[in-house]
Amino acid sequence: MEIKLKENERIDDLQYKGLKIIQNKNGFCFGIDAVLLSDFAKEIKEGANVVDLGAGTGILGILLAGKTKLNKIIGIEIQPDVCEMASRSINLNNMQNRVEIINEDIKNIENILETDFYNAVVTNPPYKKIGSGAKNQNEKESISRHEVKCTLEDIIRVSDKLLKNCGSLYMVHRPERLADIIYCLREYKLEPKKIKFVYPSYGKEPNLILIKAVKNGNPFLKIENPLFVYKEDGTYTDDILKIYGREKGE
Amino acid sequence: MEIKLKENERIDDLQYKGLKIIQNKNGFCFGIDAVLLSDFAKEIKEGANVVDLGAGTGILGILLAGKTKLNKIIGIEIQPDVCEMASRSINLNNMQNRVEIINEDIKNIENILETDFYNAVVTNPPYKKIGSGAKNQNEKESISRHEVKCTLEDIIRVSDKLLKNCGSLYMVHRPERLADIIYCLREYKLEPKKIKFVYPSYGKEPNLILIKAVKNGNPFLKIENPLFVYKEDGTYTDDILKIYGREKGE
Repeated sequence: MEIKLKENERIDDLQYKGLKIIQNKNGFCFGIDAVLLSDFAKEIKEGANVVDLGAGTGILGILLAGKTKLNKIIGIEIQPDVCEMASRSINLNNMQNRVEIINEDIKNIENILETDFYNAVVTNPPYKKIGSGAKNQNEKESISRHEVKCTLEDIIRVSDKLLKNCGSLYMVHRPERLADIIYCLREYKLEPKKIKFVYPSYGKEPNLILIKAVKNGNPFLKIENPLFVYKEDGTYTDDILKIYGREKGE
Repeated sequence: MEIKLKENERIDDLQYKGLKIIQNKNGFCFGIDAVLLSDFAKEIKEGANVVDLGAGTGILGILLAGKTKLNKIIGIEIQPDVCEMASRSINLNNMQNRVEIINEDIKNIENILETDFYNAVVTNPPYKKIGSGAKNQNEKESISRHEVKCTLEDIIRVSDKLLKNCGSLYMVHRPERLADIIYCLREYKLEPKKIKFVYPSYGKEPNLILIKAVKNGNPFLKIENPLFVYKEDGTYTDDILKIYGREKGE
């Protein structure tokens, strides 16, 4: 399918099964976060119906549709132009039957999607509280990085509404928000079941967390083995190469 | 000072500034947990008044009195014979002026100690919920390992009572209880501020967590760099040797 690019857009190779994504050079471009989350959530079962809250460029939906046998993943994205760009990426990968993007505010979710229905929710939400740190000048980037349009609690409340009993939420976030995340998940009866810390390298503090919570799950948390991104010589670790689909020596 | 040993007791060298501890071979013997917690809490300030909840053999109080310039640390221990043994360990180290053990149930804390007064609370509580896993046959070990006499919530509630505003709680626990711990701390306005994960070796899941919470602290959690106990060749890492006071090559 021929896809038209707008000004400042480019097509990037996802380096996984030939998948591609359209990104706007002046907007928020996907980082390692989405790639790691898609790997963390790749246990999603065959036939699953999934929602991606704050879908952005559509990267998560496209990667998960490539990595799993999910039935359908619906991305919700508040920014109309980002949404339109994501739709073109879906077409570019011929995934129209399995990935859909809806331009909506997640806070209206009950008017859009069925509740107590979905097997999984995935989300790479804005990390920073409103008013914390220097805001990005660019409005689009700001919506993607700061809790301008929705807060952590919005994300968790909506996930709880969407998920069926025992359904799973998969989230990537920053370690400094871990207490906020765990407390809020528990408040909504989403039990934290699995956490993986991502360390930039050996001996450094982690800069990302991957967390899985299960609706009405029993309390027992598994902290997984750590994921290191770079080796001491500055090259990717074998674990990262594996996630990117490039084995050692390639 | 000459110290008498009872049947099944032995004196162990703490390998730190000549400190020693009396332990009962049939009871709960200190492990790496107490040593790591004393290192994690060694930032406790000069002149601090500290409480150790569930003091056991007195190991934490003795190590902290050796590693910091705290004014006084009071250990609360429910088992009378363990308490008496701890008192002899304190005498053995000539720390009677700085370390004290009180034989009491922590649930009576308000009748024993001043509330809203202490700079820090340290605790190496029983890790396992009542009814979870195989109970140790030995009753003493069971009290030390399982929440027979007090629950996680008891520990946190009592810590909150004892601490002055901005006072710190330092706890060692198991990773699978992290969600329980964070949720309960928040409920009592003890804000999680610092967590360190202890991994037995590279690539393994963590088996201990060290956590610091501050009474009425602002939300911002720092996950510290990971601590690995063993190297791939089975010997201690340099970090562990440093904590044990043995530098590389010794």
